[in-house]
Amino acid sequence: MTARDVKKVVLAYSGGLDTSVILKWLQTEYGCEVVTFTADLGQGEELEPARKKAEMFGVKEIFVEDLRETFVKDFVFPMFRANTLYEGQYLLGTSIARPLIAQRQIEIAEMVGADAVAHGATGKGNDQVRFELGYYALKPDVKVIAPWREWDLTSRTKLLAFAEQNQIPVTKDKRGEAPFSVDANLLHSSSEGKILEDPAVAPDEIVFQRTISPEAAPDVATEITIDFHHGDPVALNGETLSPATLLTRLNKLGRDNGIGRLDLVENRFVGMKSRGIYETPGGTILLAAHRNMESITLDREAGHLKDSIMPRYAELIYNGFWFSPERRMLQALIDTSQHSVNGRVRLKLYKGNVICIGRESPNSLYDTRVVTFEEDEGAYNQIDAQGFIKLNALRLRLGGQIGRTGGAL
Amino acid sequence: MTARDVKKVVLAYSGGLDTSVILKWLQTEYGCEVVTFTADLGQGEELEPARKKAEMFGVKEIFVEDLRETFVKDFVFPMFRANTLYEGQYLLGTSIARPLIAQRQIEIAEMVGADAVAHGATGKGNDQVRFELGYYALKPDVKVIAPWREWDLTSRTKLLAFAEQNQIPVTKDKRGEAPFSVDANLLHSSSEGKILEDPAVAPDEIVFQRTISPEAAPDVATEITIDFHHGDPVALNGETLSPATLLTRLNKLGRDNGIGRLDLVENRFVGMKSRGIYETPGGTILLAAHRNMESITLDREAGHLKDSIMPRYAELIYNGFWFSPERRMLQALIDTSQHSVNGRVRLKLYKGNVICIGRESPNSLYDTRVVTFEEDEGAYNQIDAQGFIKLNALRLRLGGQIGRTGGAL
Amino acid sequence: MTARDVKKVVLAYSGGLDTSVILKWLQTEYGCEVVTFTADLGQGEELEPARKKAEMFGVKEIFVEDLRETFVKDFVFPMFRANTLYEGQYLLGTSIARPLIAQRQIEIAEMVGADAVAHGATGKGNDQVRFELGYYALKPDVKVIAPWREWDLTSRTKLLAFAEQNQIPVTKDKRGEAPFSVDANLLHSSSEGKILEDPAVAPDEIVFQRTISPEAAPDVATEITIDFHHGDPVALNGETLSPATLLTRLNKLGRDNGIGRLDLVENRFVGMKSRGIYETPGGTILLAAHRNMESITLDREAGHLKDSIMPRYAELIYNGFWFSPERRMLQALIDTSQHSVNGRVRLKLYKGNVICIGRESPNSLYDTRVVTFEEDEGAYNQIDAQGFIKLNALRLRLGGQIGRTGGAL
Amino acid sequence: MTARDVKKVVLAYSGGLDTSVILKWLQTEYGCEVVTFTADLGQGEELEPARKKAEMFGVKEIFVEDLRETFVKDFVFPMFRANTLYEGQYLLGTSIARPLIAQRQIEIAEMVGADAVAHGATGKGNDQVRFELGYYALKPDVKVIAPWREWDLTSRTKLLAFAEQNQIPVTKDKRGEAPFSVDANLLHSSSEGKILEDPAVAPDEIVFQRTISPEAAPDVATEITIDFHHGDPVALNGETLSPATLLTRLNKLGRDNGIGRLDLVENRFVGMKSRGIYETPGGTILLAAHRNMESITLDREAGHLKDSIMPRYAELIYNGFWFSPERRMLQALIDTSQHSVNGRVRLKLYKGNVICIGRESPNSLYDTRVVTFEEDEGAYNQIDAQGFIKLNALRLRLGGQIGRTGGAL
Repeated sequence: MTARDVKKVVLAYSGGLDTSVILKWLQTEYGCEVVTFTADLGQGEELEPARKKAEMFGVKEIFVEDLRETFVKDFVFPMFRANTLYEGQYLLGTSIARPLIAQRQIEIAEMVGADAVAHGATGKGNDQVRFELGYYALKPDVKVIAPWREWDLTSRTKLLAFAEQNQIPVTKDKRGEAPFSVDANLLHSSSEGKILEDPAVAPDEIVFQRTISPEAAPDVATEITIDFHHGDPVALNGETLSPATLLTRLNKLGRDNGIGRLDLVENRFVGMKSRGIYETPGGTILLAAHRNMESITLDREAGHLKDSIMPRYAELIYNGFWFSPERRMLQALIDTSQHSVNGRVRLKLYKGNVICIGRESPNSLYDTRVVTFEEDEGAYNQIDAQGFIKLNALRLRLGGQIGRTGGAL
Repeated sequence: MTARDVKKVVLAYSGGLDTSVILKWLQTEYGCEVVTFTADLGQGEELEPARKKAEMFGVKEIFVEDLRETFVKDFVFPMFRANTLYEGQYLLGTSIARPLIAQRQIEIAEMVGADAVAHGATGKGNDQVRFELGYYALKPDVKVIAPWREWDLTSRTKLLAFAEQNQIPVTKDKRGEAPFSVDANLLHSSSEGKILEDPAVAPDEIVFQRTISPEAAPDVATEITIDFHHGDPVALNGETLSPATLLTRLNKLGRDNGIGRLDLVENRFVGMKSRGIYETPGGTILLAAHRNMESITLDREAGHLKDSIMPRYAELIYNGFWFSPERRMLQALIDTSQHSVNGRVRLKLYKGNVICIGRESPNSLYDTRVVTFEEDEGAYNQIDAQGFIKLNALRLRLGGQIGRTGGAL
Repeated sequence: MTARDVKKVVLAYSGGLDTSVILKWLQTEYGCEVVTFTADLGQGEELEPARKKAEMFGVKEIFVEDLRETFVKDFVFPMFRANTLYEGQYLLGTSIARPLIAQRQIEIAEMVGADAVAHGATGKGNDQVRFELGYYALKPDVKVIAPWREWDLTSRTKLLAFAEQNQIPVTKDKRGEAPFSVDANLLHSSSEGKILEDPAVAPDEIVFQRTISPEAAPDVATEITIDFHHGDPVALNGETLSPATLLTRLNKLGRDNGIGRLDLVENRFVGMKSRGIYETPGGTILLAAHRNMESITLDREAGHLKDSIMPRYAELIYNGFWFSPERRMLQALIDTSQHSVNGRVRLKLYKGNVICIGRESPNSLYDTRVVTFEEDEGAYNQIDAQGFIKLNALRLRLGGQIGRTGGAL
Repeated sequence: MTARDVKKVVLAYSGGLDTSVILKWLQTEYGCEVVTFTADLGQGEELEPARKKAEMFGVKEIFVEDLRETFVKDFVFPMFRANTLYEGQYLLGTSIARPLIAQRQIEIAEMVGADAVAHGATGKGNDQVRFELGYYALKPDVKVIAPWREWDLTSRTKLLAFAEQNQIPVTKDKRGEAPFSVDANLLHSSSEGKILEDPAVAPDEIVFQRTISPEAAPDVATEITIDFHHGDPVALNGETLSPATLLTRLNKLGRDNGIGRLDLVENRFVGMKSRGIYETPGGTILLAAHRNMESITLDREAGHLKDSIMPRYAELIYNGFWFSPERRMLQALIDTSQHSVNGRVRLKLYKGNVICIGRESPNSLYDTRVVTFEEDEGAYNQIDAQGFIKLNALRLRLGGQIGRTGGAL
């Protein structure tokens, strides 16, 4: 990308030091008009200061938007329908937010007639991939500026020097290096880098921002109910809530009960292992609730099929392929399964634990008549089991008869 | 199966009321010689009373064996190499014990020249399938007697009457009906049936036999280390231990810290949903430890491949196909992956939580040089990310150019 | 099933000797009213004789229906969207017809107030499973009568004797045993059993009913075009045709060019291997055409995802789970992918070969600008490949650096 | 890569114009010592001219090696054990040769103390990826030179000019542009590019190099037998042959009978669709033979498991990940399955068709007693089918009872 190629760029702008430096750098290096886009995805920061700062830089088109409901309804909930876990553990809090930012950035670019977009993600991480795959999928001819891969502000010192030269205000706490890096939205906070780089060392308590520790949580459990409709949570303790409000409440409940911490070494799409500390209080509760809701409402093979494609679905989201044909196809499969995932789950929250204490559903497939140890009035004929076993065993027996006993090959 | 077909049968005999009735019933109905086989798989019961009882029934060939080490080494550990969870949650404690019992029963049948085997599993459950698939795979021409599917002792009253008529001693606590049914071995206890049949109602505290509740667990965390070699745990807190000893110790640690309870509605192979209360204290710790050990030693795609086949592997074990070609093939894949899964994991156990607080390995693939936010001395060239993204995006852009934006199909 | 349980039964009735015997046997053994259902699925037999025969047996409610269009449109085409092959080779011609028969039988049962259904499939085959899984899924309380598993007419002699005793007309060619058994519908014919049982011996030419041999086919190739819309064929040689008409025409083309024969040893759901001779002339052409249509219109990962789930989808259909949640979920995934599978494929048919000689589509993703060996005007930047490779290689290099060269584990 | 970084480079050298220009360019641009490596993988060209040319360029270390046996034994046969097809059709003839070249190149680099390797693949294709992933996996610190991505000889004219300036002999037929590009080895030839770029146009007959057309093939079929041992072919028509000899003979048979042509639009790893004309005469016969051998010797679930992972295995090889942990893991699974894949397959080759006319094996699982339509002496109890169906139907019936008929969700 050379400077003269770009006329107008939409920058994903947080208002913080780094993206402020990027804003200025774009104006000076690319000499192009910069449009800022600042979104509330529930990261817990004021947005108005970002608007003020953008104005200070002479930005004429400033977009500040609350996307929390869209985020939860169209991204978080669809993902939770699949009980999605990356590498068996990670609830994908960062990954799932990127496509929405990319989507909105491109929509704004179309609106304001911008030919480029820019983001503040570094060249080692997954986020650059997630942003840019989204950009390219949604607007194939867009120009993408990734300052961290381009500029020479490769050290904190240089960055601060640039800020100073350009009258970019640097708050005191930003003068020193942050001891680790943070990303947050309504689903989670992640912390990584620097003091967290050694996977042999546990994170200090100060790292955690969104949860108290299990140890600090109350000695008495909290009981809640969550109601589901078509696989999505719709009410908490009987109160119908909007998606973002519901997740906000669950976050509060999770925080207070020390729920949702994860210390993980994961594999990045760009090829290396990295270590992250994640806090997903509400999401952790939601996963447990959804699994339990499905446990009585979902057919066995429907559930097993979902489980078998989940790792791939998780990988797609982690790698940044939300806006891809294959993610859409898997989503169609997943969504088809959720029609009868309706009902209520009761949970006990206690010092890091999410314990299911009851599930009920108008669509329950759990049939006491059949399963009972008691007399079942003919709902199940035990003698059927013999034929079932005999035919399931037939191929194994035929193998055994010619010397391949025990399933030998 | 008609009576005159069978000459000698090996019965999986616990010494309890039910299998004692079966023993007698086999002797009278089939008029055949009965050989008993009683195994210690860590269920926590004395075996010698079973021997005495068998003698009382005139059994001449009595096998009483301690199989705990074999159980853990050749069945539990191989399964844990895959981070196996059935339906996302269940550690398969019952399922994994059945193949060993079946195997040993068949070996004994060969030894004593028996033409039949018998078990005490009911006609509604999975265990009959697991036993019998094992029998048939290992000895295709074996005759299988499943009394619960054959006899007319279909109520507790009839069973007790038969016991009385045949001078089978019934301990007082067995006179009334047990409020639920229990299975146990070194890996877990399960409780199900009767008072546990309603999935909307949480189990009473009395149901739990192998763990104290998180609430009752100590207020202070316990820290431990587990060492792995080729994917299997070999030492606890630095002390090298045999497989069964190690699992026994982990069980104690889990019990004391309220770890490993699961209240689950699962899908049986025979077709219905059932509800089980599982306690897998040591196994729950082991799963967390193994996942964390893999997180720094296993290649990304190796791990993802394992994750993608795991649901199928779990299903095979749950359904009783341990002795099958497909389980052996998957095991070959899994075992191949574990060569470098060596090192030490540190864990904190606290009121139901298993929290990783450190992992280290001589085979670690985690490379601080590459991942660092700091200067990386050229270990990673950020500019490579651009080409990586561009080519990953190419197909999406080509789609977008002909109107299929955002991954539309 | 005991006789007195059944009041009225809907029989899948072909009008042939076997189902005529069943008809009579149901009337006498079950003493119930029999309703006949005879469907034209393109098996190439007159249906009116079946009606006459049914009348002769005193049947009052006789259903004779032409289901060819429904069969192709709602069963064959959806299956072909997935390029479905069981065990890599079999186009599932028998399997895909069974669910429709079951469905219609149940609809008729509801209409006429029947409480039971009956079919003429034997106890060793897959068809009994396919029929009955369909019945049970569509009408869970239906009673199923499978005479071949129940009666004592276990030899040809007994069957003929029963026919004679009951004045069932036996045509001369049915007096002797057929040398093999045949099933046919618009998609295929299958031949199996008796003289075909030895997989070491090739089938005689007389076995083939629906195709001439490649040797006998013309020495000059026939060229055709097939047009697709949303993944389904809609026109042949430019002429828009209904589903059944189109398949009928393709069958003729295939027959004349010796296309679509398959000699297969397959694995039945009930546990044994069996050998079948299949002729699927039109279907074989259609598969080649569809694959080629997809090759230019389907995104890479969409195609790979389809390929990865196809074996499971094929297995479900083969095993009789058409009316199951998991088949519906997979169908949703597959159907989602077909939106842009539009265009025209040109094929050359020659002595058993189906050779693609051209594909074009308004939705083509094939982009000559990008792929060209010539100057591509910047559509693709070769230097991007370097970063792409470097990051794809990163994990392998990190492994190699610690001694795991060449992808060692 | 800058010139002064490299001291000694091993070049994959064919002796043709392009790699001769590369050789000279490396000497002049990088000023480094060049070692040439020329391998016979069955491409059907003389190697000695390459040696002479290398000498002419002053190369001191020249490696000319016949790798045909290694190629077939350690790469082709392992791949065929999986019945590998990329995108349902492609036998991966090019893909499977690249890892061997990379491996040998790296071994030579280690031997001669070279710090770099170079190849002649272009920046748009898959081969660059396959070579380089192999290099990096086997020698993580190797420097890779890909001249086509680096130099400015971006047109034929410039290339020829460079050749002229450097006294590189250009044979007359190379002066003009080749109408398409060819790759060949013992498994296949591929042709692509230029006149073949339009997928709507069939390739001219002159494109084919390794097969005659079905039309030109004899009017009389040729019958052959292939014997397998542990899944690999070991004899043709009863004559035991080395791997490369066997494949050479099969190629001749395939060529003469018009077998193994494929006109394919495929999806490249680097992101675009491309069109290739492939000829794999021997491989096409081998695939049919192996599938048929497995059909009587492989357990059903073993076969289905193989089929389910095959698309991923094919993708790995196509994408260049032969030397990866995941390919090794899948290979372990595949190889485990082949122990009993022994026996003989008879085939008829006729004008493009490969028709199985018989399979036999000492390890056959095909059991006439069980499958027969005749009296089976109790090998299979038809009544077992009832229980088998009932329990397979149970979950569908339970669904139907609460309104989810027909497998509705």
